[in-house]
Amino acid sequence: MKLDFRHGRVEMCHGSGGRAMAQLIDELFAKLLTNDYLAQGDDAAVLPALPGRLVISTDSHVVSPLFFPGGDIGSLAVHGTVNDVAVMGARPLYLAASFILEEGFPLAELKRIVESMARAAAAANVLIVTGDTKVVEKGKGDGVFITTTGFGVARDGVTLSGNRARPGDKILLSGRIGEHGMAILSQREGLTFDAPIISDSAALGGLIEAMLDSRADLRALRDPTRGGLATTLNELARQSAVGMMLDESAIPVAPAVAAACEFLGLDPCYIANEGKLVALCGPQDADKLLDVMRQHPQGQNAAIIGEVIEDSHAFVQMTTCMGGRRILDWLSGEQLPRIC
Amino acid sequence: MKLDFRHGRVEMCHGSGGRAMAQLIDELFAKLLTNDYLAQGDDAAVLPALPGRLVISTDSHVVSPLFFPGGDIGSLAVHGTVNDVAVMGARPLYLAASFILEEGFPLAELKRIVESMARAAAAANVLIVTGDTKVVEKGKGDGVFITTTGFGVARDGVTLSGNRARPGDKILLSGRIGEHGMAILSQREGLTFDAPIISDSAALGGLIEAMLDSRADLRALRDPTRGGLATTLNELARQSAVGMMLDESAIPVAPAVAAACEFLGLDPCYIANEGKLVALCGPQDADKLLDVMRQHPQGQNAAIIGEVIEDSHAFVQMTTCMGGRRILDWLSGEQLPRIC
Repeated sequence: MKLDFRHGRVEMCHGSGGRAMAQLIDELFAKLLTNDYLAQGDDAAVLPALPGRLVISTDSHVVSPLFFPGGDIGSLAVHGTVNDVAVMGARPLYLAASFILEEGFPLAELKRIVESMARAAAAANVLIVTGDTKVVEKGKGDGVFITTTGFGVARDGVTLSGNRARPGDKILLSGRIGEHGMAILSQREGLTFDAPIISDSAALGGLIEAMLDSRADLRALRDPTRGGLATTLNELARQSAVGMMLDESAIPVAPAVAAACEFLGLDPCYIANEGKLVALCGPQDADKLLDVMRQHPQGQNAAIIGEVIEDSHAFVQMTTCMGGRRILDWLSGEQLPRIC
Repeated sequence: MKLDFRHGRVEMCHGSGGRAMAQLIDELFAKLLTNDYLAQGDDAAVLPALPGRLVISTDSHVVSPLFFPGGDIGSLAVHGTVNDVAVMGARPLYLAASFILEEGFPLAELKRIVESMARAAAAANVLIVTGDTKVVEKGKGDGVFITTTGFGVARDGVTLSGNRARPGDKILLSGRIGEHGMAILSQREGLTFDAPIISDSAALGGLIEAMLDSRADLRALRDPTRGGLATTLNELARQSAVGMMLDESAIPVAPAVAAACEFLGLDPCYIANEGKLVALCGPQDADKLLDVMRQHPQGQNAAIIGEVIEDSHAFVQMTTCMGGRRILDWLSGEQLPRIC
């Protein structure tokens, strides 16, 4: 009997290692995520040698709700991980995907999620080559958690790292901030705004390839996810032992996000993004890099938002729209749990 | 203020991406799992090129209870994944580790688990090079889930796969079965037996290296985890479209496991192992391979337990100790949930 993807639910036996699990793998995962490596059917995938430095990143995805404007946990689990590989100056090639399912989760929703993963992986040009499925009892999980591990090969001669920033470097941002976090929040809280806010969840590989092709003097790239732009810049400042000075008026924020943040008392600089990147670049190449970014669909709203300065405290500061100056600290506490 | 590893608990802010998460990473993960790659501190690890075919495996670990005789979720998360890489004829080199923590989980237990991972990784000679931490609300997880992804490089000229079995091949088992599953079960149910049953959880890389060094004509290796020996042999039979004929009296089972299984009405052939392997080997080399296995501490009780036969139904059959014959089917249903 075939799995019932209309009315069926995840049962404990789907994680047993036995016949029911084999059926779930055959009729769902192997069918939708098909490729030669996954089809090997062993407990590990054997892949050709990679010609260059190996870049590896892993992320567990526990976003709630599972479906949100602009994406779902499946597409997010692809984008989140391929972006972490790409920002190291690498081309993401493969993903491993591991699912923790809660007993009773509708198979119809699981199928939608895996279909979405398949589309996102195809669009990002990566193959999902191996995986795992576990099932926990009802009340011991929350629908589905997906851990993806991405790997790729670093471009020859390119070394990007958060520890390479130097005073004078320009800080570029690829587009408007806060869209992923506010899309999740509005879905979760049932808020409706005049203009619906859509998650920016997307794979950044294409934009990054264009930036690398420009041969601009890039120091580091990073995607400002959990903790938002503010936290990402603080991470980079700490890693490089430098300060940063931002210009608030230069930071692109969509009007709907700005309005929603104001209404809710949130600062967009701390709201998660899933399709944006920060670039640190030697000052001589910043304008050239900005042009290249703006020519890419994912960088249309790119801007130079500040510069790296000397500061033994590694503070990130901002000249505000009011003309004052404030410190943009690390996110403390938790504004929006389970954003990714 | 330092984290309180005596009385502290996981809070939602430990997954925020902000300051609290950075502190947890610094004072726990980076401190205990220290190596140069993890210390890079970027969102992905950049590793040297690997000279050969890349072998990848991923597994989520949701074992309950988290601590059991012979191990814990930390050591298991290392062993489970390095073994899946090693059975492909590869040397495991690196692990990525991703944690899903439940709000309120004691930091003291988390520290014990990470210490155990560190010891297991050191013993298996692998480095944990990158990771992730997420936190879910109390009641939306179950203490800690750990997903590990292992990377290794396949030995030149060695091709092992579950689809390479041929009639006449001998089936070897590296030791006594059922110990991991029965250790978990006895811990979970508060059962006490005369002789305590200890999980066999262990990294098999050393045994496998010795087996590869023997140059025996190996077709496939696989570790009989979830679903036990019976399910693993059925997977191999299906992949290769062959049958198997086992000799029940040749299958090594420790007396304590046999007694506990009999008492509980369980068949040891379906009980999970975490430190055993099945080998399929060309008949001419089986005795040589058995000798090599028996000379290794992890293969002392190795045995030839049967052979591959022609069978278009891909049945796994067994000559029983009573002289009869029965089919050893796939595990159906779920005997022991959350065994790994």
